[in-house]
Amino acid sequence: SVPLTYAMAVTEPLSMDSLSLADRDEQQKKNEGVSEASPMRLRMEKFIKEQQDHIVKALEELDGAKFRKDEWQRKEGGGGITCCLQDGNVFEKAGVGVSVVYGTLPKPAILKMSANHKNIAPNGEVPDSLEFFAAGLSLIVHPKNPMAPTVHLNYRYFETAKPDGSSGAWWFGGGSDLTPSYLFDEDAIQFHRDLKDVCDKHNKDYYPKFKKWCDEYFYNKHRGECRGIGGIFFDDIDETVSDKENTFAFIQDGLKSFIPTYVPIVLKRKGMPFTEAEKEWQQIRRGKYVEFNLVHDRGTSFGLNTPGARVESILMSMPLTASWRYMHEPQPGSREARLVEVLQNPKEWV
Amino acid sequence: SVPLTYAMAVTEPLSMDSLSLADRDEQQKKNEGVSEASPMRLRMEKFIKEQQDHIVKALEELDGAKFRKDEWQRKEGGGGITCCLQDGNVFEKAGVGVSVVYGTLPKPAILKMSANHKNIAPNGEVPDSLEFFAAGLSLIVHPKNPMAPTVHLNYRYFETAKPDGSSGAWWFGGGSDLTPSYLFDEDAIQFHRDLKDVCDKHNKDYYPKFKKWCDEYFYNKHRGECRGIGGIFFDDIDETVSDKENTFAFIQDGLKSFIPTYVPIVLKRKGMPFTEAEKEWQQIRRGKYVEFNLVHDRGTSFGLNTPGARVESILMSMPLTASWRYMHEPQPGSREARLVEVLQNPKEWV
Repeated sequence: SVPLTYAMAVTEPLSMDSLSLADRDEQQKKNEGVSEASPMRLRMEKFIKEQQDHIVKALEELDGAKFRKDEWQRKEGGGGITCCLQDGNVFEKAGVGVSVVYGTLPKPAILKMSANHKNIAPNGEVPDSLEFFAAGLSLIVHPKNPMAPTVHLNYRYFETAKPDGSSGAWWFGGGSDLTPSYLFDEDAIQFHRDLKDVCDKHNKDYYPKFKKWCDEYFYNKHRGECRGIGGIFFDDIDETVSDKENTFAFIQDGLKSFIPTYVPIVLKRKGMPFTEAEKEWQQIRRGKYVEFNLVHDRGTSFGLNTPGARVESILMSMPLTASWRYMHEPQPGSREARLVEVLQNPKEWV
Repeated sequence: SVPLTYAMAVTEPLSMDSLSLADRDEQQKKNEGVSEASPMRLRMEKFIKEQQDHIVKALEELDGAKFRKDEWQRKEGGGGITCCLQDGNVFEKAGVGVSVVYGTLPKPAILKMSANHKNIAPNGEVPDSLEFFAAGLSLIVHPKNPMAPTVHLNYRYFETAKPDGSSGAWWFGGGSDLTPSYLFDEDAIQFHRDLKDVCDKHNKDYYPKFKKWCDEYFYNKHRGECRGIGGIFFDDIDETVSDKENTFAFIQDGLKSFIPTYVPIVLKRKGMPFTEAEKEWQQIRRGKYVEFNLVHDRGTSFGLNTPGARVESILMSMPLTASWRYMHEPQPGSREARLVEVLQNPKEWV
């Protein structure tokens, strides 16, 4: 099937040019399905949709309540599936979203991206426009019990098409981070150890580099503290770091490790007793989570400023409830104070 | 006292240059007090501090609970007074803040400001730095009862100093807007009529111009709706619009009209019965208020990105509690739906 596509691309350039990348991918999916020989676009889309189903099922099993599932189209090209569970037994809110976007980059965007990705404009020749593809899975889970931590994960793939339809520049990004209201060191250690294991399997440099990147990215600058106790984060792995096949393998391992890492933590915490004051502290921490997402998170602000974006899918990351108390400060020496201290001075957990 | 100051400025330029604007103002306040002949900086500061006391007293009388009062210094120059009432009988949260800032504008900031204010760089000569003064009063009140509307108000004065210490460019800004969860037309009409009366007294063009400006500024772009039912807003009135004395008179009338406008609305609504679903709707509207403030409000993002800013004073605008429900939509034909319709299509109330 690959030789056929290749032959089409080289023998019928004029008719190919009249089909968009999205149309061509749609045709190929219909005619040949998706295999290991398919373009990365189709493999990534297939993989994240499978993982979405898998994660939704696992969280439903844990909670007892069901996710609502919305499929949506983006009129500019592409679409997605948003799954959201609200007011469940274990989870206050859990959102697992997949989006697959086809579009065209205008020249200023290409210029900007070429600063970090030489391959987008080889030999310094910047085209007037370029078709692009972006696909990703994002999830966020806010448990009810203040002893159970919020978690966030995102893995994504981006590529541009060359005029002949073959892949141009490409990169993967993503990561996962944990945000407890009450800190259990054993949870933080387990979360980081699992991520380190995934990283180490692929590259011993990944964990220290991506752990640091995560602490720096999820930094709530105006509060002078990290959003949570971190994890891993990387904006883009491209050919300067590794090859596409090995990076996809790393992304797959990262995403697949989510359920076996997070579910045991929730199982340990979901039934723990808590006071009204501890619930209130969770609500205040949720407020700071909202602040980070709306003020500093580049993904959220990019999304909210994208014409035609599905706002409800972007903002499913918001907690169900949050609180802001003027000048609220934890008691010195309390568990709440220790959390803040760790957020101000990120620790090495493994 | 003015001739003395003037004489000092022209006869002792060298010793004057060694005193900052803040030092000189401090001296003048101590030696001479503040009168109608004082520089606008001192008159504005005095006026907003008096109004802060007045508003705090009036809201305490209405609520029964007391405000907490924090005075703070900004190590870069200036400071403020933040008054906050939390979890009261009538108000979920009420914040009334005054800030008075002395500082120095670097050249890039002067260049940027000179686009809208020629006087900041007369004859196109842009100095390397300029001392500036900024003072303002901001308030936000979130009542508990979902039938009582949230209100926001801000009035501010900005000026730069010429090298000889006299005033350079100046402008006033401000406005006031109402954000109900449940729309009572009579409240919206009264709120707008009172603002129109204040405006009309000074300039018949003000109300229509500033009403429109308010609808445009407090537009929650990613939601496609206004934050509330508006009021008035203006970024800067300078010498191209009116003179300093008349503008100050307008600002004073605007600020003084707050209590007589807002208190009667709260008195009518604070005891009205409401259901749990109506309280929940208020919480969802509060969530959108948070979104506007953190994503779109230039004042908030400017504040949060200012080094040394007092974050708790900026974020006292946050409601005590807020909620986000995925895909929450009001029932067609309901009161909730009518509010959204009005937010999507701002009305002329007077």
